Amino acid sequence: MTTRESRPVAGTDPRTGSPLAPGAVETTPDGLDEIVAAAADAAPALEALGRAGRARLLRALARALDRAREEIVAAADAETALGPARLGGELTRTVYQLEFFAGVLDDGGYVEATIDLAGETPMGPRPDLRRMLVPIGPVAVFGASNFPLAFSVPGGDTASALAAGNPVVVKAHGSHPGTSRLVHELLQKALTAAGLPAGTLGLVFGRTAGERLVAHPAIKAVGFTGSLSGGRALLDIIGTRPEPIPFYGELSSLNALVVTAAAARERPGEIGTGLIGSVTASSGQLCTKPGLVLVPAGADGDAVVEAARSALGDAPVIPLLNQRIHQSYLDGTARLTGVPGVSTVARGVPSAGGGFWVAPWLASVDAADMPDEAFAEYFGPAAVVARYSTQAELRAVVDRLPASLTATVHLGADEKADELVAALGRRAGRLVFNGYPTGVSVGWAQHHGGPWPSTNSLHTSVGATAIRRFLRPLAWQNAPVHLLPDELSDEPVCPLPRRVNGELRVPR
Amino acid sequence: MTTRESRPVAGTDPRTGSPLAPGAVETTPDGLDEIVAAAADAAPALEALGRAGRARLLRALARALDRAREEIVAAADAETALGPARLGGELTRTVYQLEFFAGVLDDGGYVEATIDLAGETPMGPRPDLRRMLVPIGPVAVFGASNFPLAFSVPGGDTASALAAGNPVVVKAHGSHPGTSRLVHELLQKALTAAGLPAGTLGLVFGRTAGERLVAHPAIKAVGFTGSLSGGRALLDIIGTRPEPIPFYGELSSLNALVVTAAAARERPGEIGTGLIGSVTASSGQLCTKPGLVLVPAGADGDAVVEAARSALGDAPVIPLLNQRIHQSYLDGTARLTGVPGVSTVARGVPSAGGGFWVAPWLASVDAADMPDEAFAEYFGPAAVVARYSTQAELRAVVDRLPASLTATVHLGADEKADELVAALGRRAGRLVFNGYPTGVSVGWAQHHGGPWPSTNSLHTSVGATAIRRFLRPLAWQNAPVHLLPDELSDEPVCPLPRRVNGELRVPR
Repeated sequence: MTTRESRPVAGTDPRTGSPLAPGAVETTPDGLDEIVAAAADAAPALEALGRAGRARLLRALARALDRAREEIVAAADAETALGPARLGGELTRTVYQLEFFAGVLDDGGYVEATIDLAGETPMGPRPDLRRMLVPIGPVAVFGASNFPLAFSVPGGDTASALAAGNPVVVKAHGSHPGTSRLVHELLQKALTAAGLPAGTLGLVFGRTAGERLVAHPAIKAVGFTGSLSGGRALLDIIGTRPEPIPFYGELSSLNALVVTAAAARERPGEIGTGLIGSVTASSGQLCTKPGLVLVPAGADGDAVVEAARSALGDAPVIPLLNQRIHQSYLDGTARLTGVPGVSTVARGVPSAGGGFWVAPWLASVDAADMPDEAFAEYFGPAAVVARYSTQAELRAVVDRLPASLTATVHLGADEKADELVAALGRRAGRLVFNGYPTGVSVGWAQHHGGPWPSTNSLHTSVGATAIRRFLRPLAWQNAPVHLLPDELSDEPVCPLPRRVNGELRVPR
Repeated sequence: MTTRESRPVAGTDPRTGSPLAPGAVETTPDGLDEIVAAAADAAPALEALGRAGRARLLRALARALDRAREEIVAAADAETALGPARLGGELTRTVYQLEFFAGVLDDGGYVEATIDLAGETPMGPRPDLRRMLVPIGPVAVFGASNFPLAFSVPGGDTASALAAGNPVVVKAHGSHPGTSRLVHELLQKALTAAGLPAGTLGLVFGRTAGERLVAHPAIKAVGFTGSLSGGRALLDIIGTRPEPIPFYGELSSLNALVVTAAAARERPGEIGTGLIGSVTASSGQLCTKPGLVLVPAGADGDAVVEAARSALGDAPVIPLLNQRIHQSYLDGTARLTGVPGVSTVARGVPSAGGGFWVAPWLASVDAADMPDEAFAEYFGPAAVVARYSTQAELRAVVDRLPASLTATVHLGADEKADELVAALGRRAGRLVFNGYPTGVSVGWAQHHGGPWPSTNSLHTSVGATAIRRFLRPLAWQNAPVHLLPDELSDEPVCPLPRRVNGELRVPR
């Protein structure tokens, strides 16, 4: 135990492979218990703030991050090599997410306030019943490797859980402990300035602490973005709890992209070029990267692939996030290359130096003879093109697709493709038309989720409804007026949409 | 296998303990696979009906049941001994549930239709994004012992799953196979008359078939009402699936009822009498039966208990549903009676004959010295009164309460009890004031759920939002108009509430 107590947690410079100065130490079991207990103790204060108070709080957290922009981006770039441009954009998005959830709180529709006044029904008299969603309790959030800000300490899971009124304990990702600690300190200061307990947002380091966090009885939900194996391991820990809790894992996604014959004929160059932009964006380390591309056989499809090959020639060699991802990319693409029938379309020139540099890579395979390896996700700037000769071949591949966050189809002008789109819709959470799945905008209508193994089907981790994951319903029957929350009172101080006797009513 | 293939499934007459004529045979593994495959094949037709078509379908199912009222009630009474009055009421409720979900479909708000039109945002340009909830896929429903209609083949789980657009496979409860088969045949006829495949609603018999059903890859969600151990066993099977699926279990509920000192002073007789009415309703076999009652020590509390004792003396001896429940009730109450400090307040006279007859039973214990056995659910007409002398004693018991579907508090006129109510609210899904938790009205604001082990916290099995369990979000990005569902089109044929660019809009 003594060695674990003092074991340092350090990131690595992806550009050189050299270890960075330790950013933190692993959290001990006792330390973990204290942090979770502090989170549980903080719950009443956070809930008591109410919607208006929590909206103010989220805006204060956003300002605190924005004010430290330079320092945050520098820290994140040192640990991830994602570059100042991408990281600056990610910070902007992170700030926006916090502000967006403040707007969700202002609106108030997310609590689903519903009032059935006492009266007669076909089933006899009914009591006065009022229902709304309330905070579920302390939430564990696991930071993602590929978004040191937007899906980590101050990310969408944290923003939506805090907005819902739940304290959060974040398990920092091992790739960016320094960034995690820096951002956590900034948020802690803002929380304290707002009069909230420090336990409102906890931070822990190390795999053991993460496992113990998920098993802790005071934790009531888990948000996770990472690998399928990592998610499955946490799910197995949850299975051993006396009380199972919801696990919101965003785990694995192939993100098939289908180019129809008509689309290939009409705009081969645009599609091939756009595809490579999407495959190599953020070094290919996006959960929505298109990993399998269905292109028709023949001259039109050849033109799509040629445009992609040409675009890939211009793509820079890039460093991946960490040693594990780097090795996994090298192993995966080497394994795929060795499968009979798989040919390499194009490959950038890998760097000879240290660090986690890799070359973008595009392979090709015959859709009539698809190996299982072509349906796997290769995390990094790699994609497989499958060439199909008939609609039956295309459909057979679609029917084998693992469920994903997204499915994309490029159609010809006015092309009907109802059956294809319906089949893709059964295997994805977001259908993208004539575009690319990378770039997940934050908004009311966004959905970032899909059937297993992309996520657990029912919920999203991006967009307004991400807050629903961290709420539970509670009903009041014949409650005295003074015991009702504002949202369910006869004249709410902060107006909100409500359904009264079955009729949805919107303020103003 | 051959013995299992032909093993009959028969109920028992609870009034005599004699076996009834077999109502069905156990479903073979091959039979189960065929039924699930038929359900999966039926999905597109049910979804294609649309909201208006499914609303018509649910109303047709309701009519089919109502027309066979006498036959259904007689069959259910033979297998459950719940009596024609209660079963007639349950059928009325079952019919009402189907009609209610038709109204939920008419309204359309449940799909959460949301449209963000393309435009500029602080994050840069956003695409046209449209999101709604779509059917999750075939649903497994486990019939409950205590509601042969309202929580079985045609019950709330089935109604909400069909309304959502999902085929259903019901696992019949072993206590009422004949009723299950009868009702299933009536519904099948109505489905066929509506032009739907017979696979839209399947029915299977036997424990093995139930286990295989939950493990089947085509099943996408499970609704279950039953014991904690039975639910845990199904949850463990789900844990072994490659694809985990949501399990909606309604499992166990103590339903504490607190009488404050002021309430005991103001209306002891009313509370004591009402309590026994709630404890013995439907032979005490309701998931919302109050099982632990906190009453102040002293003369006012004595008057509450005396009124309860007196009311219990009038309560009839009643037959429980089956041999397992009967034995469990006898064992449980005997075990509790043997615990030091537990005294029997009143007990009806048990019948000497055959069958599953039991006497209602009320025990008393000192709140300062509560045994674990006083926090257990005894399924049947039994309750434990705990007498508290101080607010600290009351609060200590409240802090030990297992989470339940409900928590009830009887207050004095104008009494403040914010902290007590907040503590109860953390342990329940519905807070009942100055009333009783039994009697769960079906409506928009109802919530029938609560933290584990009552359910899985986030969802309800009664009321409009029960439909949310069987839906998943899907988003369309830059979709051509002809590929959008009606709910997300620019001018929907069937109007519904929608959020457009963040603003909630209600038709008319």
